[in-house]
Amino acid sequence: MLNPWADPGKPTGERVAALLAELTLEEKLAQLVGVWVGISEGEEVAPAQHEFAEPLPPWDELTKPGLGQLTRVFGTGPVDPLVGAKVLAETQRRLVANNRFGIPAMAHEECLAGFTAWQATVFPVPLAWGASFDPESVEVMAREVGRVMRDLGVHQGLSPVLDVTRDPRWGRTEETIGEDPYLVGLVGAAYTRGLESSGIVATLKHFAGYSASRAARNHAPVHMGPREFADVVLPPFEMALRLGGARSVMNSYAEIDGVPPASDPSLLTDLLREQWGFTGVVVADYFAVSFLETTHGVAGSPGEAAALALAAGIDVELPSVRCYGEPLAELVRAGEVDEALVDRAVTRVLTQKCELGLLDEGWQPDSPAALRGEPVDLDPPALRDLARTMAERSVVLLDNASGALPLTAPGKLAVVGPCADDLLSMMGCYSFPNHVGVHHPEVPLGVEMDTLLAAVRKEFPDAAVTTAKGCEVSGDDRAGIAEAVDAARDADVVLAVLGDLAGLFGRGTSGEGCDAEDLSLPGVQGELLEALLATGKPVVLVLLAGRPYALGAYRPAAVVQAFFPGEEGAGAVAGVLSGRVNPSAKLPVQVPRTPGGQPTTYLHPKLGAKGGISSVDPTPLYPFGHGLSYTSFELSDFAAGDELPTDGEVEVSCLVRNTGARSGAEVVQLYLHDPVATVTRPVRQLVGFARVELEAGEQRRVSFRLHADRTSFTGRDGRRVVETGEVVLLVGCSSDDVRWERSVRVTGEQRAVGHDRVLDTPVEVG
Amino acid sequence: MLNPWADPGKPTGERVAALLAELTLEEKLAQLVGVWVGISEGEEVAPAQHEFAEPLPPWDELTKPGLGQLTRVFGTGPVDPLVGAKVLAETQRRLVANNRFGIPAMAHEECLAGFTAWQATVFPVPLAWGASFDPESVEVMAREVGRVMRDLGVHQGLSPVLDVTRDPRWGRTEETIGEDPYLVGLVGAAYTRGLESSGIVATLKHFAGYSASRAARNHAPVHMGPREFADVVLPPFEMALRLGGARSVMNSYAEIDGVPPASDPSLLTDLLREQWGFTGVVVADYFAVSFLETTHGVAGSPGEAAALALAAGIDVELPSVRCYGEPLAELVRAGEVDEALVDRAVTRVLTQKCELGLLDEGWQPDSPAALRGEPVDLDPPALRDLARTMAERSVVLLDNASGALPLTAPGKLAVVGPCADDLLSMMGCYSFPNHVGVHHPEVPLGVEMDTLLAAVRKEFPDAAVTTAKGCEVSGDDRAGIAEAVDAARDADVVLAVLGDLAGLFGRGTSGEGCDAEDLSLPGVQGELLEALLATGKPVVLVLLAGRPYALGAYRPAAVVQAFFPGEEGAGAVAGVLSGRVNPSAKLPVQVPRTPGGQPTTYLHPKLGAKGGISSVDPTPLYPFGHGLSYTSFELSDFAAGDELPTDGEVEVSCLVRNTGARSGAEVVQLYLHDPVATVTRPVRQLVGFARVELEAGEQRRVSFRLHADRTSFTGRDGRRVVETGEVVLLVGCSSDDVRWERSVRVTGEQRAVGHDRVLDTPVEVG
Repeated sequence: MLNPWADPGKPTGERVAALLAELTLEEKLAQLVGVWVGISEGEEVAPAQHEFAEPLPPWDELTKPGLGQLTRVFGTGPVDPLVGAKVLAETQRRLVANNRFGIPAMAHEECLAGFTAWQATVFPVPLAWGASFDPESVEVMAREVGRVMRDLGVHQGLSPVLDVTRDPRWGRTEETIGEDPYLVGLVGAAYTRGLESSGIVATLKHFAGYSASRAARNHAPVHMGPREFADVVLPPFEMALRLGGARSVMNSYAEIDGVPPASDPSLLTDLLREQWGFTGVVVADYFAVSFLETTHGVAGSPGEAAALALAAGIDVELPSVRCYGEPLAELVRAGEVDEALVDRAVTRVLTQKCELGLLDEGWQPDSPAALRGEPVDLDPPALRDLARTMAERSVVLLDNASGALPLTAPGKLAVVGPCADDLLSMMGCYSFPNHVGVHHPEVPLGVEMDTLLAAVRKEFPDAAVTTAKGCEVSGDDRAGIAEAVDAARDADVVLAVLGDLAGLFGRGTSGEGCDAEDLSLPGVQGELLEALLATGKPVVLVLLAGRPYALGAYRPAAVVQAFFPGEEGAGAVAGVLSGRVNPSAKLPVQVPRTPGGQPTTYLHPKLGAKGGISSVDPTPLYPFGHGLSYTSFELSDFAAGDELPTDGEVEVSCLVRNTGARSGAEVVQLYLHDPVATVTRPVRQLVGFARVELEAGEQRRVSFRLHADRTSFTGRDGRRVVETGEVVLLVGCSSDDVRWERSVRVTGEQRAVGHDRVLDTPVEVG
Repeated sequence: MLNPWADPGKPTGERVAALLAELTLEEKLAQLVGVWVGISEGEEVAPAQHEFAEPLPPWDELTKPGLGQLTRVFGTGPVDPLVGAKVLAETQRRLVANNRFGIPAMAHEECLAGFTAWQATVFPVPLAWGASFDPESVEVMAREVGRVMRDLGVHQGLSPVLDVTRDPRWGRTEETIGEDPYLVGLVGAAYTRGLESSGIVATLKHFAGYSASRAARNHAPVHMGPREFADVVLPPFEMALRLGGARSVMNSYAEIDGVPPASDPSLLTDLLREQWGFTGVVVADYFAVSFLETTHGVAGSPGEAAALALAAGIDVELPSVRCYGEPLAELVRAGEVDEALVDRAVTRVLTQKCELGLLDEGWQPDSPAALRGEPVDLDPPALRDLARTMAERSVVLLDNASGALPLTAPGKLAVVGPCADDLLSMMGCYSFPNHVGVHHPEVPLGVEMDTLLAAVRKEFPDAAVTTAKGCEVSGDDRAGIAEAVDAARDADVVLAVLGDLAGLFGRGTSGEGCDAEDLSLPGVQGELLEALLATGKPVVLVLLAGRPYALGAYRPAAVVQAFFPGEEGAGAVAGVLSGRVNPSAKLPVQVPRTPGGQPTTYLHPKLGAKGGISSVDPTPLYPFGHGLSYTSFELSDFAAGDELPTDGEVEVSCLVRNTGARSGAEVVQLYLHDPVATVTRPVRQLVGFARVELEAGEQRRVSFRLHADRTSFTGRDGRRVVETGEVVLLVGCSSDDVRWERSVRVTGEQRAVGHDRVLDTPVEVG
């Protein structure tokens, strides 16, 4: 007869309760921690990792009581995937054999823009997904990435990032989907749905507020009130839970108004579980439980930190054991922490393991890949194709007033700038090559890629292509500028390829811990650009970057903005330059005019905009939602009801027609303006969008069904409300390119709305 | 027999009730508005003033029902004080004659740093008061300024500004007393006490949160949670009410988390009146009631704006009538606004008028000055002396590593820079010359002043002084730099006199509406400074500015920082240069190293400071509380109890000794550090200070009595609490120059504290 917890025929609750009843305190706590094996000194891939690096006890001793999670077997060093799968299987086998009840660990990995593992497809970063306004591709990507991870024995992915950009100086801006909560939420929910559909547990992070830290310094305090938190920060999480079905959530590092989320029961328990009904597992961001003691000063010891975090609702300490081990055990034994809180967390962990089949009798430690024993291709053609499509849809043509693009039969092309011939400039901070690979120069990159220079040579086989670096991405060495200027003088067209190098904790200009003081181009790239422009040659500025930079000081012939477009990004950008690819992306973050004056957001009330009251004008150079095409689109035949019941919908539609000579795609955008409300409201707020592909001359009707819930906001009393009165609906092609607007009366009774409200705006493209 | 309201022998409550009962609705509303006479187009001295400029009806018609307030009879144009006093008297006489009950108006004026009137003493700006750490002088100044105003028939001064600097890019930083709430509160309370002791109603502003607007843009939204609001923004207001006795409060323009303070009953009524017990009059900042409609969008019409503001607790609309007149009357008549709300505000206004004697039978419209009919000296020698003392105490010697200062017998001095020979560079935005005088070039400045150049010539009569402007304060004209460099090359010592020109709404680089995108020196002054430094001559940088600027890129021989030091400021700065004045001021705001990375504050928790977690290092170049002297001070013989009961005090003391060869003053500073608390706490927070004057060789004992209440903060549940455990007390000469620290146990029961808590730290200098 099976042990009651191992019987797949029994209800999960019974199985978990039966197992929990058998576990000692030590065995329970073992389920609440992760272990990071294979991490070595000098490879900083988590904040303050060196502070907490302690020698682990021997494996069998360590895992005698069991183990909750295995930290990044694939994502810590350059592991051949088949070898990794076998190591993981063997690790699980020893673990299962070693603990009394044979409970395996959850294996988690990073997978922000593809699986963060050696040889795996490097997709465009989330900011590029935002630019594509294309949730469907993101969903497919996440599902396919998840399938690869499942094949290798992984259970949980520490993605997606749902932070809304609040200050683009933040290094992790590249990891966000942009500055609009609806865009972040819809794309983030698609990612979540995709990853979960593969069987991988998606982890929503960072819950919540991280991106709004003071002056955009990583981990710095967040100054924010409850209304902004509810209306800007939380909606993407609600959407990814309800529309995406996420089974895990990870805390944010940064305190909000004095309270670190990892110690906040009102957030992790009252809101997340009691109000939103979340039943999965809350995991700590790496070392976040320790940080309650060491950096926040809200706990006096590792045990106090554990007690705080556990009571707040952190179920699992990651990535290692410091607080939830012996320090927490001592407090429970002393009666200072109620063991029921431990049981609460363990129940969640075991429930998840049970649902994943990990408790089933006969659970198989070998993943499909380990069982096959054959080489594993983590970058198969289908994923490369997807990476290419996503890259092509993510390149934003910001400016082409000169008509310089597409480049037709260029004779002599100078491809200059520090990002022109650097593979790493194509990828974000959480790509394996930038995240981990940089510590292993002895190991090849692992994926086939072109630099933009190589892609340009392929794209323009008849052109004479010269190149010069000009300067490094960062630093103040100007020695190479003269050579770049010489190359420019000698060319018909200059491609100035500038931007970022993503890296961790100061090893780059973008990425985790790589925050900027202002939004000027890093290093002396601005001077390089000025020198190139001074030659009088047509300069096409190409940005491969993780954040928007201030471009108001320059007048290039054209501007192409890519946000780390991934392994197929070089070809995508080159295709936009040649016209082979017709750009269709739109800005998910506004591009500022000047480097200072941050933070700004397009979601400002009237007083956040230009006006006579401040000498500082925050008007962006390129607004949110802006992006050009090589064809033209006309919006016409608009229609909308003039009434919106507070519990009903209004339909808004228009014809979009490709009036140019070639196929292309337009992102039709629906904005909301609320002229009078009980609290201040954004002048404009995205409430719907549709990416519409059209052949030359083709037209389609785009119809949005906008529910009144989508006009709701947090009222004076802290409750979400649909107010009656006037709202204005605006249809256009950017937040500043409105083609039509209509005043609509919101009628009926003012209505309080809860967490069951309508979160999205269905779109039909006829 | 007297009318009951006119009888000084009766209790105020009875008199006001009797009068109120007689008033028509129109007569009531007339008490709730101000009228601005004499304001003309093109003289923008209030935000969006032009939008609301409407022709007024004839005076007698306008004032038939009475009038609450007269707006700035003296502060609107260059009015001779005696003429102003007579006009005011005549205006009051007509008003009294014209309304049924003979009620005069309150006459209010600006008096931020001296009476904002033609010919009145121009004192150093509040940021300079902060630098002096000298509340006693500020109290004397306010009392004397108030006496002058009373002499002229004024009743109310629209000061002090109690905003705590949260982002020095804000143009109004010059109007703040600094970035520490205790310093702001103690100095602000002293100002309030002084002004009130003269009989003038002090007006605390801007209630509350104004200074923390996004990216420091004037009026922009404030992102802030309730804990920061309670612990940083509110304390100066509590101190000025309880320790200063203010009788009026003015709202802040800027919304907090979506709610404009002028529409917030929880702030203006629940907190201010019900919890704090304020019984005075809340006046609107200029046009703030209209702004609820026109810029915040929380009201749909002037009447709605009036209804919102009145219900929230704005008693008087200033400076003119737009909402509280006919639009509000209509709503009351229609029963949409309860007349009881009108009565509540009118009662407050009439109570104040009654207490000021304005309702007394036989009230005299003629002020003492009008009665005397003799010329009035608004800048008498005693006030000049005070202005000089305050200026001398406010000049901060930031750096003198080279020993370049004091300048002994300089042969050739080049005094260069755009602020060297400009009187306006000595004064803040609310000085009459900068605020109003600039619109009247035909009228003389009104006060005798030296430019710094003139003062240097006087200070160093034997030196050969040359000068060159180099560049303007703002703009990008570099044409004059060469001439300045020539002057520098020819000199033994160069004084580079840089900084700001204060003005309103874009007419300057500092002041209301003159916000900065970053903290680089305005215009091309940074380039001028670099060019001067490149000559190799010793350059003494002298800043006459309204905010701190980033100085990390420069290596001058010495740095002297003055914050608009007023009419005697030039001599004070020159005295510091020569050594005649021994500098004793300390920074009330930190001076940053780099122009970007704002906002920062010295009141950061550990994660707001430098660390490996962000590539951006916010460590200032010169920390809060820093300032040098020409003598040296030793702190010794420290003593403190090692226990602090949660309802008791601990004494902390030390000897401070002047170990140098000349007399001087040191500001001994007491800081608090709370290593473990339930919420994150500042790494260091000022809790006491003493400015100690010492002859060479003299020593005195400084003793602080720190009450446990001073360690309190807003806990997790939103209530203020004294927590038990360890606190660390630090004694030093700046926030980064700690000479001694002591761990103290806070013992007893954790204690909730209310609005009766101890707000200050008494100091004895033995």
